[in-house]
Formats: sequence, structure tokens, C-alpha cells
Amino acid sequence: MNKRMVFRTIGRLLQITALLLLVPAIVAIIYGETKQIFAFAITALGSLVLGVIISLITKTKNKVIYAKDGFAITALAWIGMALVGAVPFVISGDIPNYVNAIFETVSGFTTTGASVLTNVEALSQSALFWRSFTHWIGGMGVLVFVMALLPNFTDRSIHIMRAEMPGPIVGKLVPRVKDTAKILYMIYIILTVLEIVLLRLGDMNWFESIVHAFGTAGTGGFGIKGDSIASYSPYSQWVIAIFMLIFGINFNVYYLLLMRRVRTALKSSELWCYISIVFVSITAITVNIVSMSKGVSEAIRNSVFQVASIISTTGYATADFNQWPGACKAILFLLMITGACAGSTAGGLKISRVVILFKAVLKEIRKMLHPRSVSKIHFEGKPLEDATMNSVTTYFVIYMICFLGAFLLISFENFGFESNFSAVVACFNNIGPGFEAVGPTSNYSAYTDFSKIVLSFAMLLGRLEIFPIIIFLSPYTWIKKK
Amino acid sequence: MNKRMVFRTIGRLLQITALLLLVPAIVAIIYGETKQIFAFAITALGSLVLGVIISLITKTKNKVIYAKDGFAITALAWIGMALVGAVPFVISGDIPNYVNAIFETVSGFTTTGASVLTNVEALSQSALFWRSFTHWIGGMGVLVFVMALLPNFTDRSIHIMRAEMPGPIVGKLVPRVKDTAKILYMIYIILTVLEIVLLRLGDMNWFESIVHAFGTAGTGGFGIKGDSIASYSPYSQWVIAIFMLIFGINFNVYYLLLMRRVRTALKSSELWCYISIVFVSITAITVNIVSMSKGVSEAIRNSVFQVASIISTTGYATADFNQWPGACKAILFLLMITGACAGSTAGGLKISRVVILFKAVLKEIRKMLHPRSVSKIHFEGKPLEDATMNSVTTYFVIYMICFLGAFLLISFENFGFESNFSAVVACFNNIGPGFEAVGPTSNYSAYTDFSKIVLSFAMLLGRLEIFPIIIFLSPYTWIKKK
Repeated sequence: MNKRMVFRTIGRLLQITALLLLVPAIVAIIYGETKQIFAFAITALGSLVLGVIISLITKTKNKVIYAKDGFAITALAWIGMALVGAVPFVISGDIPNYVNAIFETVSGFTTTGASVLTNVEALSQSALFWRSFTHWIGGMGVLVFVMALLPNFTDRSIHIMRAEMPGPIVGKLVPRVKDTAKILYMIYIILTVLEIVLLRLGDMNWFESIVHAFGTAGTGGFGIKGDSIASYSPYSQWVIAIFMLIFGINFNVYYLLLMRRVRTALKSSELWCYISIVFVSITAITVNIVSMSKGVSEAIRNSVFQVASIISTTGYATADFNQWPGACKAILFLLMITGACAGSTAGGLKISRVVILFKAVLKEIRKMLHPRSVSKIHFEGKPLEDATMNSVTTYFVIYMICFLGAFLLISFENFGFESNFSAVVACFNNIGPGFEAVGPTSNYSAYTDFSKIVLSFAMLLGRLEIFPIIIFLSPYTWIKKK
Repeated sequence: MNKRMVFRTIGRLLQITALLLLVPAIVAIIYGETKQIFAFAITALGSLVLGVIISLITKTKNKVIYAKDGFAITALAWIGMALVGAVPFVISGDIPNYVNAIFETVSGFTTTGASVLTNVEALSQSALFWRSFTHWIGGMGVLVFVMALLPNFTDRSIHIMRAEMPGPIVGKLVPRVKDTAKILYMIYIILTVLEIVLLRLGDMNWFESIVHAFGTAGTGGFGIKGDSIASYSPYSQWVIAIFMLIFGINFNVYYLLLMRRVRTALKSSELWCYISIVFVSITAITVNIVSMSKGVSEAIRNSVFQVASIISTTGYATADFNQWPGACKAILFLLMITGACAGSTAGGLKISRVVILFKAVLKEIRKMLHPRSVSKIHFEGKPLEDATMNSVTTYFVIYMICFLGAFLLISFENFGFESNFSAVVACFNNIGPGFEAVGPTSNYSAYTDFSKIVLSFAMLLGRLEIFPIIIFLSPYTWIKKK
């Protein structure tokens, strides 16, 4: 392990964090929020100084980053960002309790959107902006951002990208990691700007358009109103619904479209699976809720919005799906687990993993029927290697173990099975709202600090797809071996 | 596929079923229940005639049973037994609705113990006996029984045993399948008789001792009182609790003890895992319920009983754990999923699978840290082959897919998330009672026929470990290929 390089990267990251904290500081200046100006500025300064010190004391010639290091950097970076990013909330008094502030910040960076705030409308504009901005930063990945920005990043940084990017198979779009990071962020920025403009054309002002576009782009879900998106016009709801679905698609597809390789882009079987699942879910839910809606168009809009919000793991709401029939809740529950496409900003298991899981089952059945024949499984036009398939099935196992572990830990709270269960599902899959006590009209404030920390870890595990956190916490990672 | 041999075995099975149906008929004679005498006798006769006809028209010289056939035989046998075994309930009027009767019979044979009866005490003695007797038959396996009994069974019948016996690795205790089956049934009978005698020494009469011993041995859970075991003496509760734990242990261990290979028997890591899980769960639950119990001894007894009942997937109850704190319910929920040891009469995933799942995760993490090194994983003193590990992880995947599928199907009932979710957990893992609407003091009568059929399938999937049913239902199994 190259410890110096690990901490050197963290040092750089803290410097970038300082830069990012200046954005909400500017917002605070615009809105004349003096306490907040001070809070963001002092945190930025602290982060900068700490970052420079770490960079100075970890100078090294050995710039190699090993696989292990990639995981450790990713875990440390995300934990560090959350700890730093929570500070302004406390200083400004927007969220006085540091544990609450950490929960909110982790929820922001991991694009979960679960909140501990009982009255979000009481927050200052700059605090609201920072909440949503963390979604946008976390959506595409903090370290991908660092790689896109910094000049002389080593070529071994593919290990960082692998650790931070979601999905079973992480490929580079172009040979150099740095260029891939740039392309990804370019697509991300274009789509975000497009959504801001479209939202501004509706009943949202610039501020509202920007924060909601951030929340959509990162598939986060922090809103600025108590009823999330419900009080905005149907036009705004439709724009957000469609963009939630857009940000749930693998960014490879957009890259291919940019390169005018439309045919290759449309060949993605994950994309078609995603579209089919969305279509079937919308139809089933619309049929089930039409009787309790004011007409078919409202039923369709609510169904599309909630399906888009849950499958993309965003968590915005225009209807209290907690009141919907059991079948609708069951469908949403399944969508919570699948999530959207790999290589998007969405959380959950990812559609491609689910497809591979089904294929693994199929292969096993075939093997039982014809023990001697060797059957090849294909995915995305290529043969699926056994190693990939085993990694995916094992990932599913560890996913369920972490899930059940977190559920056990928060079960000491007496909120009832459904609330606790869906709280873990919603945090672990980076969605935000669950059912019952943590439903779309409620929040996580009633949980104890212990449970909030467990759920924060669940969010990190979900966003980073488990392994970085486990490897980071394993003592074997840090012991020197020769 | 050797279709003739498949149906020939089913024919034989129907003849055996006729024989088994005579036992409750005798009970009916003892208690002078005329309607029931007729019901069991006429069903036995029908089953015998049908069995003989099938045997006559499927005579064949080719006695080979292929892997595929083993699965098909097992699936068909269990479905057939349930359809036949439900008939006497309808004829006698004990359970007039045939769907309800099927649910009850499937629940019996699969040793689930979930009931649709609102007043079990209104049933005739012979019907109560038959319910419990189905547990006993289903516990060790119907086909294992057939193999132990019939003289000239082919040596390829290992395929049937593999399909019917639970657990990731099915081994023969002795070279011949027939002898293995005999040994297993011998151990099963000895333990059952021992429990009957011990229960008779307490406050139960012969009838009560026998039906409860049957329910314990098969890890089924059908009782004869509305409050399950709660109204019996602490002595009886302790006997049942300990025997539930005993029947959750791999029968290999007992075989080794019989052979006086005590050391080898005690080397089983699955056994030690099982003991540890039981011990930790009992301690945790006792601490949590001591304040709501009349003293420590009651808390310990209730904790031991409920843990033993749930981990062995029996389903007897002496306390309404639905009223227990969230942490206790979460622990019981996890025990519902793990189940007890492979090669026992218990349901669930089985401890050995859970251990292998954890080892697979460990291997994956090691592979990530040291991509080039090859690490060997051991289990029960032997190296664990990749193929076994992959089968287990894939089994877990298909287990979850079936589980979520069944949950989606019964979610059209408006019983709330917790009831529906735990109903599927309880049926799929062959436990019986779940939480809320299907808790230990309630039953499944409120579900529609559709849901009852889905849950019956879930019970069969759980008992036969999924593959036989899927392979049986797959059209590819039945199409002739050369």
C-alpha cells in the first residue's frame, strides 16, 4: 500500500472541497446571509489549510496507486468530505446538532436525499443550496471530479475510478482515465444546464430551477419545500420526472450519442431492460391508483413521477405513495432495490447487475439439467465471463448481508418493522424516503444518533458499493506486508 | 428424460400414500368418528386404485433415472401428495373448502405449519392427527421414505435424494442410497419415539404427545390448541424446545454418534455455528424481554422456546412474539431466513449455506486486495470447490428472486407491508407464523384463494429448495431432445 499517495490525494481533495465551499458562500453573499457567509468561508479556509498541510507532509516520488489504495482513497475521501461538509450547517446554526448535520451531508453527497429536518423551509437559502449542491457533486463522483480537474494525475488512477463508479463493469470511454472523467463531467454539465433552463421556463425561479436540477442530476432528492415537488405545476413535475429517468441511464449511452454512434448506443440491453421495467411499472401503478386520483392524467403524472423518482433513486415526491395500495408499494419496493442503470448517477443494485443475476440463475438451471454441457452466457453482445458473473452474485450476497446487518442495528428503535426496514432500504439504495414513519411526508429526525450513524454508513456503503468501505475498515489493508 | 420411470415412481408413491392414509383412519376408528373413517378410507382406496393403474400402464425395462427425472419426480410427488392428502379434509367436512384444504395439506407436508383454520380446536381428532402426521412424513421426505421401503429401487435414485434432501451438499452416509434412507428414517423414528415418551411423562396424554412429537420432528408446528403450546406445563415446553433444536441438527451428526465416531461428529463447523447462533440469539432476546416477563425463568423459557421454534422453522409458540420489542423481532426475522442445519428436517437457507455465503464474500474481498493470489477456502475441513461456492451464491440469488416474486404477487391483498412480507418469509422458509396479521395468534384465513395458492407454492419452493419445482414447470424438461 502506498500510504503517502493515499493521504496526498486526500490532501488535494480537501483543497478542492475548499473551492466547492466557496459556491454556497457566494449564494450567501447574494442573499445577504451574514452568518452563512462566515460559516462557509471559515470552513473553506480550514479545509484549504488542512489540505495544504497534508499535501506538504506527504510528498513522495512513488506515484503508483494500487487497487487497495484506490478503495482506501475513495472511502477516506467520502468520509472526509462528509465530516467537512457538515461543519457549515453547525456554524451557521441551520442544523445545530453535528450528528444531524453529518447525516444530512452524507445523505447529500451519497445522493440519498433522506433528511432529518422537520421544517426544511426554515433553512437559509445558502444552506438549501449547499444541500442540493452536495447532490450534484456526489452524483458523478467527487474523485472523478478531482481527476478531471487536476493536471498530473497518474494513469493508475483507474483504480480510483473503479472504486468510485457504480456498476459491475467499469470501462474507460477513452484510453486515458483523465479524459474519460472530463467527458463524463461534460455530459453531466450539459444535461444539468438543459434541465435548469427547462425548469426556469415553468413556474420556478432561477434559485428553484438550479437546486432542483442539482437534485435531479445527482438523483438525490433534497427539495426546498415541505411537500417536495407537489406544489409545482404539472409542467415542472413532468420536466423533473423525465430528467430523473434521463439521469438513470448509463452515461456511456450519451457518450455514444455524442460520437454519433446511435446504433451502438441503442444496442444496450441494459437500456431496453430499464425502459421496459419503467413502462410496466408505470402502467401497473396507474391502473391501481386511477380510482383515487382526480382523473386519468393526474394518475399517469403521479405514477410516472413516483416511478421515475424511485427507480432513479432520487426520492422527490408529488404524491404520498405511503397511502397507495399494497401492490403499488410492493412495485416501488422492488424498484428501490433494482435501481437504474450502471454508470448513471442512480443508486440501488443497478439493472445490469439484476440482469446478470437472472442470467446466472438460468445458467445454474441449465447446468442442473445438462451437467456435462458448457453453456455460454452473453450480455451486451459479449460473452459474460464466469469471473464477472461470480463477482456479481457475490456482490448481491454481501449487499444482502450489509442490508440485514444495518436492519438489525436500527431495530433497537421501536418504530415498527415496516419503518425500520424501509429506512434501511431507502438509505442503502440512496433513495431517501421509505414507508410509514420515514415515508415521503415524514423524515428521519425521530431516530437516535446511533441509528443516524448506522444509516449514514448504510448510505456510504450503498453509494460506494460496499467494498471501498469494508476494505478501508479492514485492518489488513493498513498492515505492512512484504 | 425417462417419462415412464417418472410416472411409475408417482404410481408407487400413490400406493404408499394410500397406506399412510390408513393411519388417520385407524385414529378415526379409535375415536368413533364415522364421517372421518369414511373420508380417510375412501381417499386411501382412490389413491391405491389410481396408483396401481399408473403402475400398470407405465411398465418399462429402462429403469434409469436421470438428474432431470429426479427433479420432476420430486416436484410431481409433492404436488400429488398435497392434492390427494387434502381430499379427506373436504369429504369429512373438517375443512370444506378445497383450496383451504390444499393450503393446510401443503403446509403440513412442507412442515410449514401455517394454518387457515380460525378454530383449530373444532377439528376432529383424526383430522388433527392427519395434519400432524403430514409434518412427520414431509420432514424427512416422502421419497426418502419410498426409497427406504421399496425393494428394487434403482441405484440412480441418488438423483431423487439430491432433489428432495435440503442443503448445498447432499452426501450418502453409506454407499447405497437405499441404506442411507433406512438409516435416516431409523434415527428419525428413534428420536420421535423418545420425544413421545418424554412428553407423555408431563401433562400431555398419548394423543397430545404423539401429535406434538410429530410436529416437532418434522419441524412443522401444527398444534391442536388455539394458543399452540402456551397452555402446557413448563416441563412440556422445555421438552419441545430442546427437541426442536435437536431436529434442527444435521442427521449426519447422529449417524456419526451412532457409529461412535464422536470426534468426527463434533468437528462439524455447521453444528458449532448453529449452537453459537442459538446461544447469542437466546441471550439477546432474554435481555430484551425480561422486563415484560414474570421473572427471569419465564423470560429464559420463552426466549429459548421461540428461538428454537423459529431457527428450526417449526413455528410452535408459547408467547406472542409479535408484541416483543423491535430488536427481538429483527433477530427472529434473521433466524427465519438462516434456518437450521442442512440435512435436518428444518427449512430456511440452512446454516451451512450462510457460512459458505460469508466465505464467498471473504474470498471476493481477498481477490480485490490481491488480484493475483489464489486463496483456497475451506469448509468442514475440506477445500471448498468453486463450483459449490458458485452454486450456493446462485441459490441465494434465486431464493431472493422467488421470495420477492411471491411478495409482489400477494401484495394485491391490502394487509400492510409487514404482514405480507412476513407471510412470504414464514411460508417460503416453512416456519408458519409471521408478524402482524399472520402473527402467532392469528392465521392465514383472511387471504384470498389466489394468495393461498401463491403461498402454497412458496411453501413447496422452500421445502424442495426451488429447483425441482422450476425444472418441473419448465417446458424444456418435457420436450424430447435427441
